[in-house]
Amino acid sequence: MSSDDLRWRRGARTPGADYRIFQTAFVEALHPQTGQPKRFSLIECVDWVNIIAITADQRVVLIRQYRAGSDSVCLEIPGGMVDAGESAETAARRELAEETGFTSSTWRLLGVTQPNPAIQGNRLHTFLALDAAQTAPPAPEGTELIAIETPPVADALALVRDGTIEHSLVVAAFGLYALGLP
Amino acid sequence: MSSDDLRWRRGARTPGADYRIFQTAFVEALHPQTGQPKRFSLIECVDWVNIIAITADQRVVLIRQYRAGSDSVCLEIPGGMVDAGESAETAARRELAEETGFTSSTWRLLGVTQPNPAIQGNRLHTFLALDAAQTAPPAPEGTELIAIETPPVADALALVRDGTIEHSLVVAAFGLYALGLP
Repeated sequence: MSSDDLRWRRGARTPGADYRIFQTAFVEALHPQTGQPKRFSLIECVDWVNIIAITADQRVVLIRQYRAGSDSVCLEIPGGMVDAGESAETAARRELAEETGFTSSTWRLLGVTQPNPAIQGNRLHTFLALDAAQTAPPAPEGTELIAIETPPVADALALVRDGTIEHSLVVAAFGLYALGLP
Repeated sequence: MSSDDLRWRRGARTPGADYRIFQTAFVEALHPQTGQPKRFSLIECVDWVNIIAITADQRVVLIRQYRAGSDSVCLEIPGGMVDAGESAETAARRELAEETGFTSSTWRLLGVTQPNPAIQGNRLHTFLALDAAQTAPPAPEGTELIAIETPPVADALALVRDGTIEHSLVVAAFGLYALGLP
């Protein structure tokens, strides 16, 4: 079967509710073979960015922050939402600076993935920032409360491997990083 | 700051709406330093499983299916939801068999991650199934329409690297796999 044979035919979209950082919606779609209709529930959000920032001495900038979904403090990489009218790289530079005070002049896109295409349409842009250095104090947004750690890159990869770094999207970022190593 | 210093104090939970494959909710929480209240929007879902199934001749079982969130046909690994009362490994064995007809007698947990702890509390259990073989025809659930491909493992990793495999949670699975290689 080709991809076209697998693709449902999208129909009307009905808005759901507004949850501030995401919105829900419904779409009707027709089964490509039977024509049978089905209603899919969707979560709509803006694009996200994640940043693996590595210092000149091969340390990676990790952050620890409270996450309400898991009701726990998570060890992650800096990241956030792409604001309206902003490019993904601009958002990544902004989030890194706001959350950690680190900046970098050497940015590379590691990959563009889809956080959960089953129910979300947004994209996650993962960047690698090399020769990162803390050039200003962090300037967290609103009520953000963030602790910064800078373990050696090899230790951070070990933290992914042993499950200490639990966030799937952060694991994906380190996966793209590790798979891209020469 | 210790993790305890970063942790907001959770208060009341208010249910939102039921979207069949997920539910929304709200929780009140108090900032750990200022005591300031904030209302967080949550998405509640059951745990998920993902499976990297590898055949005796080092091919990996990939599936192609329509995803309503992205309105596109995605190249992924088998996976799905953990049913009530089911262990994660049982769900993984069931999903692999249903979606592809492949079975395996050699299962290993690659990792347990959190798909999006900012707004979700559920976990994703990623399994490695070795010596996998197609022992029955696929038996997809309901309207599921799935095409199966079995590229060599090295080719699948290249598909992650070049962005053909876009699903973040599948990238995370291959990241755990690659980081765990000797």
